[in-house]
Amino acid sequence: MSDVLNRLADVLEQRKQAEPDSSYVARLYAKGLDAILKKIGEEATETVMAAKDGQPDKLVYEVADLWFHSLVLLAQQDLHPDAVLAELDRRFGLSGLEEKAARGRQ
Amino acid sequence: MSDVLNRLADVLEQRKQAEPDSSYVARLYAKGLDAILKKIGEEATETVMAAKDGQPDKLVYEVADLWFHSLVLLAQQDLHPDAVLAELDRRFGLSGLEEKAARGRQ
Amino acid sequence: MSDVLNRLADVLEQRKQAEPDSSYVARLYAKGLDAILKKIGEEATETVMAAKDGQPDKLVYEVADLWFHSLVLLAQQDLHPDAVLAELDRRFGLSGLEEKAARGRQ
Amino acid sequence: MSDVLNRLADVLEQRKQAEPDSSYVARLYAKGLDAILKKIGEEATETVMAAKDGQPDKLVYEVADLWFHSLVLLAQQDLHPDAVLAELDRRFGLSGLEEKAARGRQ
Repeated sequence: MSDVLNRLADVLEQRKQAEPDSSYVARLYAKGLDAILKKIGEEATETVMAAKDGQPDKLVYEVADLWFHSLVLLAQQDLHPDAVLAELDRRFGLSGLEEKAARGRQ
Repeated sequence: MSDVLNRLADVLEQRKQAEPDSSYVARLYAKGLDAILKKIGEEATETVMAAKDGQPDKLVYEVADLWFHSLVLLAQQDLHPDAVLAELDRRFGLSGLEEKAARGRQ
Repeated sequence: MSDVLNRLADVLEQRKQAEPDSSYVARLYAKGLDAILKKIGEEATETVMAAKDGQPDKLVYEVADLWFHSLVLLAQQDLHPDAVLAELDRRFGLSGLEEKAARGRQ
Repeated sequence: MSDVLNRLADVLEQRKQAEPDSSYVARLYAKGLDAILKKIGEEATETVMAAKDGQPDKLVYEVADLWFHSLVLLAQQDLHPDAVLAELDRRFGLSGLEEKAARGRQ
């Protein structure tokens, strides 16, 4: 299962060459950065609502939507999800999550 | 790199047994669901701001923060990131992203 | 100008009786709470983007959208904007904004 | 009650001259635009959560927080809430909310 992000990143890269009307993602690319960012805000809100509703299936679905649009954002900015995983690994490696606590976050 | 999510999920599961003051994540668990959801909203906003600033490093950092807190949310709800990856795979498999377009999304 | 919120609240109250297809707001009511909350998240994100773009007209427009959908939310929950203004007045009266600082917010 | 926004705008304008440590708002100004925008995202999320919880008092409180930080944002950008109210009035005047529907929004 763990290579899904890579395979999805490949597809999202290919879609950059597609006609704007050929797919949902091609349309998002054509609309541009703001349209993608709007979806990030929207899917984060839907994730919050699904969690408040206490419906596990819906929550998984909405987190998938949130991650999916994060991947579209990364692709549109010519970034790869491996950079995000490496950042998570870096924090995890440095005595892990304590690194984050050390940053003085709330 | 692709097993980072699994390893992180394991750590987040272990932290459920930890003392509330022992780490950032243990404190988040102790505060409860609303505190975690607040972070989802906050990190989504920071992702949007980083993208508008056009700073790739900052964007990767904020997407990592957003995914990290998504993983904390999943763990707190006794869900595993594999469920999210399976959902992404399912969409991807069903003729992929067109499935989403077929749902009539904007 | 200061009675706009009251007049708008009156209109939003009347629209509760309207046919779902008769106006934008009637459609939102018909879709229900989650659809209204999605708009709150969306308009907050658009406000953030407009501010980052440094476009005053766009910012005013997006804050208007955010307040407008807040008013729809209040109406749908049978609340009046005067309750929100009274809450703001209360904080302002109690030696004002320091009250908020005293709550230990970040 | 309807002049609360004006009085609050006056106070927020005065706070621009204050020492950064003298009040919550002075600290927000000192931190700058991004800190204010983070609060917009955070308060929108808390509004959504309060609505899902079905607690009217909490909802009024969170909408007040959201409007309050919108006012701080406007002040920081040298804008006045009257501009937002005028925009709401303009939509309302132009055959009202139908204008918005006519824009083809979802």
